[in-house]
Amino acid sequence: MPLIGLDWGSTRLRAMRLGAGGEVLELRESGAGASTLHGRADEFVAALDALVADWHALPGPVLACGMVGSQHGWRELPYADCPADASTLMRLSLNVDWRGRPVRLLPGLRCTTAAGAPDLMRGEETQVLGALQQAPALAEQACLVLPGTHSKWARVQGGRVTGFTTQMTGELFAVLRQHSVLGRLMPAPTQDARETRDAHEAFNEGVAAARDHGDAGLPHQLFSVRSLGLAGRIAPPDLAEYLSGLLIGHELRAGLAWRAQSGLGAAPLRLIGEPALCARYAQGLALFGAADTPVLSNTAPAGLWRLAQEGGL
Amino acid sequence: MPLIGLDWGSTRLRAMRLGAGGEVLELRESGAGASTLHGRADEFVAALDALVADWHALPGPVLACGMVGSQHGWRELPYADCPADASTLMRLSLNVDWRGRPVRLLPGLRCTTAAGAPDLMRGEETQVLGALQQAPALAEQACLVLPGTHSKWARVQGGRVTGFTTQMTGELFAVLRQHSVLGRLMPAPTQDARETRDAHEAFNEGVAAARDHGDAGLPHQLFSVRSLGLAGRIAPPDLAEYLSGLLIGHELRAGLAWRAQSGLGAAPLRLIGEPALCARYAQGLALFGAADTPVLSNTAPAGLWRLAQEGGL
Repeated sequence: MPLIGLDWGSTRLRAMRLGAGGEVLELRESGAGASTLHGRADEFVAALDALVADWHALPGPVLACGMVGSQHGWRELPYADCPADASTLMRLSLNVDWRGRPVRLLPGLRCTTAAGAPDLMRGEETQVLGALQQAPALAEQACLVLPGTHSKWARVQGGRVTGFTTQMTGELFAVLRQHSVLGRLMPAPTQDARETRDAHEAFNEGVAAARDHGDAGLPHQLFSVRSLGLAGRIAPPDLAEYLSGLLIGHELRAGLAWRAQSGLGAAPLRLIGEPALCARYAQGLALFGAADTPVLSNTAPAGLWRLAQEGGL
Repeated sequence: MPLIGLDWGSTRLRAMRLGAGGEVLELRESGAGASTLHGRADEFVAALDALVADWHALPGPVLACGMVGSQHGWRELPYADCPADASTLMRLSLNVDWRGRPVRLLPGLRCTTAAGAPDLMRGEETQVLGALQQAPALAEQACLVLPGTHSKWARVQGGRVTGFTTQMTGELFAVLRQHSVLGRLMPAPTQDARETRDAHEAFNEGVAAARDHGDAGLPHQLFSVRSLGLAGRIAPPDLAEYLSGLLIGHELRAGLAWRAQSGLGAAPLRLIGEPALCARYAQGLALFGAADTPVLSNTAPAGLWRLAQEGGL
């Protein structure tokens, strides 16, 4: 059976058409993220029509993951509690209506951190399941890292997601660069990543500072982005790389400690996500002694496929 | 001899008229901070005229500290290196011209952190000297905490500032509240601080989370502001208090560790600054076992007075 999959996040809508064997036949994308649609069902329907009206008549189920199921989404779905697998998620899924055609929305995942606070994800659980579909050996046990605005580190044991931890690394980078004093010394961002030797070294220097001196505290180390710039120790075009290294370094430091505390210190480590961002994380991980961490890119289609199979859609 | 003192920071200009014994006779303040004046001498002169043109004819020297001496200030002064005292600062001070009248600008202070990065301050060194003027017993050894946009923790030994560490706590709070996803769950800020029992508890909960679970990493703990809000564990009006507690808690955790590593674990600890903000830090310090930390407010006039005496102005 073919499938229409929707990876509907806060800022982007990614629609995919999968063939009867789960192969991706077509991908389309728009900026109609859930956070732009005011929690109104008619706006979600319109966003879907704007991107894939011509798919409405195609056969097969429609399955959607991500912020589309959040408080201000098309319809709010509860979170499934960890440990959870594909069947847990499908049990909590619910239909909404796309002009007479059902769209099955998936819930997010929730766990409790060591500090007793809840932690949450919506959408990444589908990418995790996709990774297990692509690389079944990981299902036994693995630590999966999904870098992003809100990075997720997920613990997989016995085919289930048993816990995870969120880090606001990407959002911190964006707000500090755009809105803090740290951005003032940096030139305007360009589309192209800097690939010079100096940029590379500035990134590594940031990672190493977090690795070796992170106890000094991130709020302290962030100020060094400014002081190293003012002192001429790092050139302005490379300061954003240093900041990126510092923030990713703090994430890796905390994430690897979480992994060890979770008893997964020896389990396979994998990066999942956009290749350029994952390459940056792999470079950072090498400085923490984890060389050549494999990268899985865009596992959402495989995850949606796996979930559709599980639910007998 | 009377003195005209200027505490000229990034965003505010504070002018004070001191009597022959150092007593404050008059204080005036404007929003003509150094960062608003484009590094142009004529704009600095105009800003001074707008606030205190009638002081131009008064007797006595004019002495200025803060960002007025920075790269984009009235004139750029170098930093004095730690260890430094009043005479070190006066030796590096320089005059600029206020319509035929000299204004003596003070340099900032620089030190090197344990990680080998430079750390910088401009203006706080004068507040530190003012504290030593007000409470001479602190000169032998003390750890002075100046909360703010960029908080400073200064180490005083033998009458000199021997080192310090900066934390971007206030700026992190502002940018996260105004520009990140964390602010979206919070109601618009009001002028009045929340003084309810729940607000107080949310602040304490944030401090305790940083104290007990800070190893999980600030980028992780910041996300809990969102997850605790979404889960209904902290009410929206109190989320900003929790965020404040979390950030101040991380500052205190790192600052107290820095103090201990500096060999000042038993030295007097003092807060210097705006009373309401210092009260918040004192509340946080109590949760770290440092109850009733004394507060010194607005020590800049005493510092400028001390420096003018030292320079024989």
